[in-house]
Amino acid sequence: MKPTNKKSWRYRLHEIIYEADTPMGKLFDIVLLILILLSIVLVMLESVSEIDAKYHEILYIGEWIITIFFSLEYIARIITVKKPRVYIFSFYGIIDFLSTIPLYLSFLFAGSSFLLSVRALRLLRVFRILKITRYIGEAAKLRKALINSKAKILVFLFAVLVIAVIAGTLMYIIEGPEHGFKSIPISVYWCIVTLTTVGFGDIAPSTPLGQLLATVIMILGYGIIAVPTGIVSAEYTKSMDKNDVLGKDYVHVNTQACLNCGAQRHRDDAKYCHKCGEKLNYESNLET
Amino acid sequence: MKPTNKKSWRYRLHEIIYEADTPMGKLFDIVLLILILLSIVLVMLESVSEIDAKYHEILYIGEWIITIFFSLEYIARIITVKKPRVYIFSFYGIIDFLSTIPLYLSFLFAGSSFLLSVRALRLLRVFRILKITRYIGEAAKLRKALINSKAKILVFLFAVLVIAVIAGTLMYIIEGPEHGFKSIPISVYWCIVTLTTVGFGDIAPSTPLGQLLATVIMILGYGIIAVPTGIVSAEYTKSMDKNDVLGKDYVHVNTQACLNCGAQRHRDDAKYCHKCGEKLNYESNLET
Amino acid sequence: MKPTNKKSWRYRLHEIIYEADTPMGKLFDIVLLILILLSIVLVMLESVSEIDAKYHEILYIGEWIITIFFSLEYIARIITVKKPRVYIFSFYGIIDFLSTIPLYLSFLFAGSSFLLSVRALRLLRVFRILKITRYIGEAAKLRKALINSKAKILVFLFAVLVIAVIAGTLMYIIEGPEHGFKSIPISVYWCIVTLTTVGFGDIAPSTPLGQLLATVIMILGYGIIAVPTGIVSAEYTKSMDKNDVLGKDYVHVNTQACLNCGAQRHRDDAKYCHKCGEKLNYESNLET
Amino acid sequence: MKPTNKKSWRYRLHEIIYEADTPMGKLFDIVLLILILLSIVLVMLESVSEIDAKYHEILYIGEWIITIFFSLEYIARIITVKKPRVYIFSFYGIIDFLSTIPLYLSFLFAGSSFLLSVRALRLLRVFRILKITRYIGEAAKLRKALINSKAKILVFLFAVLVIAVIAGTLMYIIEGPEHGFKSIPISVYWCIVTLTTVGFGDIAPSTPLGQLLATVIMILGYGIIAVPTGIVSAEYTKSMDKNDVLGKDYVHVNTQACLNCGAQRHRDDAKYCHKCGEKLNYESNLET
Repeated sequence: MKPTNKKSWRYRLHEIIYEADTPMGKLFDIVLLILILLSIVLVMLESVSEIDAKYHEILYIGEWIITIFFSLEYIARIITVKKPRVYIFSFYGIIDFLSTIPLYLSFLFAGSSFLLSVRALRLLRVFRILKITRYIGEAAKLRKALINSKAKILVFLFAVLVIAVIAGTLMYIIEGPEHGFKSIPISVYWCIVTLTTVGFGDIAPSTPLGQLLATVIMILGYGIIAVPTGIVSAEYTKSMDKNDVLGKDYVHVNTQACLNCGAQRHRDDAKYCHKCGEKLNYESNLET
Repeated sequence: MKPTNKKSWRYRLHEIIYEADTPMGKLFDIVLLILILLSIVLVMLESVSEIDAKYHEILYIGEWIITIFFSLEYIARIITVKKPRVYIFSFYGIIDFLSTIPLYLSFLFAGSSFLLSVRALRLLRVFRILKITRYIGEAAKLRKALINSKAKILVFLFAVLVIAVIAGTLMYIIEGPEHGFKSIPISVYWCIVTLTTVGFGDIAPSTPLGQLLATVIMILGYGIIAVPTGIVSAEYTKSMDKNDVLGKDYVHVNTQACLNCGAQRHRDDAKYCHKCGEKLNYESNLET
Repeated sequence: MKPTNKKSWRYRLHEIIYEADTPMGKLFDIVLLILILLSIVLVMLESVSEIDAKYHEILYIGEWIITIFFSLEYIARIITVKKPRVYIFSFYGIIDFLSTIPLYLSFLFAGSSFLLSVRALRLLRVFRILKITRYIGEAAKLRKALINSKAKILVFLFAVLVIAVIAGTLMYIIEGPEHGFKSIPISVYWCIVTLTTVGFGDIAPSTPLGQLLATVIMILGYGIIAVPTGIVSAEYTKSMDKNDVLGKDYVHVNTQACLNCGAQRHRDDAKYCHKCGEKLNYESNLET
Repeated sequence: MKPTNKKSWRYRLHEIIYEADTPMGKLFDIVLLILILLSIVLVMLESVSEIDAKYHEILYIGEWIITIFFSLEYIARIITVKKPRVYIFSFYGIIDFLSTIPLYLSFLFAGSSFLLSVRALRLLRVFRILKITRYIGEAAKLRKALINSKAKILVFLFAVLVIAVIAGTLMYIIEGPEHGFKSIPISVYWCIVTLTTVGFGDIAPSTPLGQLLATVIMILGYGIIAVPTGIVSAEYTKSMDKNDVLGKDYVHVNTQACLNCGAQRHRDDAKYCHKCGEKLNYESNLET
């Protein structure tokens, strides 16, 4: 930790960029967040032809300012971090890189269609926002709840897809191309639109039988939405129970065994076997 | 509390306006509520051109009655309350003022577009209804549950927005302006319409790839709706566990035994056996 | 219970109609259920012009059969029940009557518009299905859960309406009649369509500001759907907790007070005060 | 289990087909899964006229490969299984058969409309995927949760249908055929579209009264979606409370005190103090 003259400036930079405790660090984080949001707004506004026509120069300049800042940040991160390679090939490293180069690329190449995908690249900056999430305790909780119920949700989605495929084909047979159900994929797409209760209405059944099946699909979708919800809220309640409900009336027990009577599952703070009163061996207690 | 002659009428007014216990107070509250609802209905009906054309006079008179009543109420509140300034600059104080002045303003200025915003001002009367909520115990509970899970919900909304921005841009690239996705903001708007399972259908993907992405967005939206629900219901369940399930009608009992009759399951704070009245051993009680 | 010769046939009829234990009773219930469903199907089919044109005679005959059966049932119920008046003016009594007379009425009067409302009357037969619910244990549970959370749900609906009124007016101001938001009521209607994530798309915002507000409304609606769900599932979990979680470690206490030390909240089975060991008075124990 | 020369090859086949433990078994399962998915994709692509026009040959060949594989699998299953009849008339047996024959049938008969239903038959292969579910532990859990709350959900759906029928007829009376509500069945269909918050928008109320009723229906649908969700999540929470929250890692403790060292909160089954090893008093233990 003893910073030598040479690395001291580096160390300070590292502190500013990677830590949020120092006032400079806080300032840096805020500026970064603002610029990220600004850059996204820029990309969006550019896509609105009227605005782009009017304020093209301003947008362009803004783009430049942001790109330069991000470039400097990227370089700074590489310099200050201990293992540059690790950072460069980390999720955020790649995001930082990809979301910075577009403007430079737009010099080398051109073509509106290509510029579009370049804009898309810029949008990767959104992921930079995720950096902020580490300041939000809730985010972790939420992520945890989702990860815990991930398996369940996947199974659920799998079920939804199977239903959609079957119902979609039936709709295709019943309604047929003449009523907008041009192909099975389209019908399956329509089914998911309906199952998820989105219901665009660009395609809608017009035959009585089709409408009957649609009814079944809708009610099905209406009913099965309960499943993921149930799962997540159960997960949540569970995680809460751990903290709140599981009160002072319960104590954690470990798998250590008594050397005298072999009784297991003693309290972590147990010094004597609760079965035979034999002193419990020290090692395990030290380890506990 | 000893009302002097001078302030006695004030005191009575205060009682009528601020308390709902006295018959007069109750009556006042009911009249107020009716007039609030009436005033909102008035504003709405005015906006319906046919109705406004026919019954303009009636609406206008009704408006006058309400405005006068509200004006008097406003003045009465200022007079009767101990610290007028506190009330005037309180949430309800501002609401009461803003929702009363419109008619007076409509004399000073004119211009249909302006009158519209005046109508909007009048709509602030809706907030007056919130005054009633203090009579509804549930409202507090509900508000509490929402406030408790506010942080979580914000994180969730943040996530929704990030998804919408990313998916929106992708849709913009895939579908492009020729299919109604005129700009990224519009695409993001469409994404939220889809994620929230609203699905107006004014814009809908028409390319296979676009429909595939739409499917993903829909299922995503269908899945993540589980999160806020899970959060709130968990909050609710939690708050219930404390207040309702383990309400004041239940008390914790332990398995300690009476040395005289051997009866078990005494209340934690029990000093005497509830079966035989024998004093229970001290140590445990001292340590409880 | 000793049926005399005179009333014996009545008694048997009563058994058949009101009880489902006897084979005849079961049969009666099944026939009734089938005829109820049939009658609803009839009314529906009649409304489909093509079907009505083709099979008018069949539908008409079917209608006759059902009406006659229902008439006989209605008379039978009045005869067999102990207090006819109670039945006649009970919910089911009125339903049975109203859902039987339409055909007879259709003789006295005519006029397609009137016949429509007559059809509607017939639809009251749907409520007869509710009779079946008494065989479904779950129904009671469900009803209970809903009734328990009724207050909460009402508050929630009230909140939804307030939001809809405010947002609706804002939309009316922003979008205006030229974009389909003809009046505040229409805008409020649109708001509820959006808040509830139904989203017909018959009206949709077209100005950027309008779409921004729409986004807020949608996410709001998407978020607050969590509230009723949370409420109900909490209610459900609660009702379950009562049975499952609230285990042997908790005991019910009453409000009886000790005559010696005044300590309250004794266990129902307490004979001695847990505070001072004084014998508790007998009356209260006998009453408990 | 002692495989004779004759049946040994059979026994090995049985192992490969029915068990997933052996490497060959695993491989077989994976190949099967891939082919099932492939076959579904094929059927879908065939339905897209453009694709079918271009790549008809490839699709046809693919179809052949899959059909042959499935045929062999089907025969193998019959040969290797102990009770062929049981398998053949089991759910999977019928699925396997029906999803294999289509191509053979398409030789005997022809006619686009018929070929469609043949395609549908092929889609039954989707159900083969269900075979995979037995590898997913979650699936069982999910199924259990659904089965547990099946009765409740049925009651709920029944309620939804009753509401839809009543509201649908009212809409038919209010809006009438001139506004798209051509018949009661159509109106009921529209009602379910609205209740389930799908809202296609192909039909939408245009009269004020109709829109008012629609509002009620929407809010109703928005509210009652809470019921199935509440049910399922309650089921889930319940099932979790037992398995997860109070898992084998926690043991109940009481507040009984050791007479020697006064340490409290011993396990209910403790005979000796876990702090000092002193024997705990008998009475309480005997009664535990």
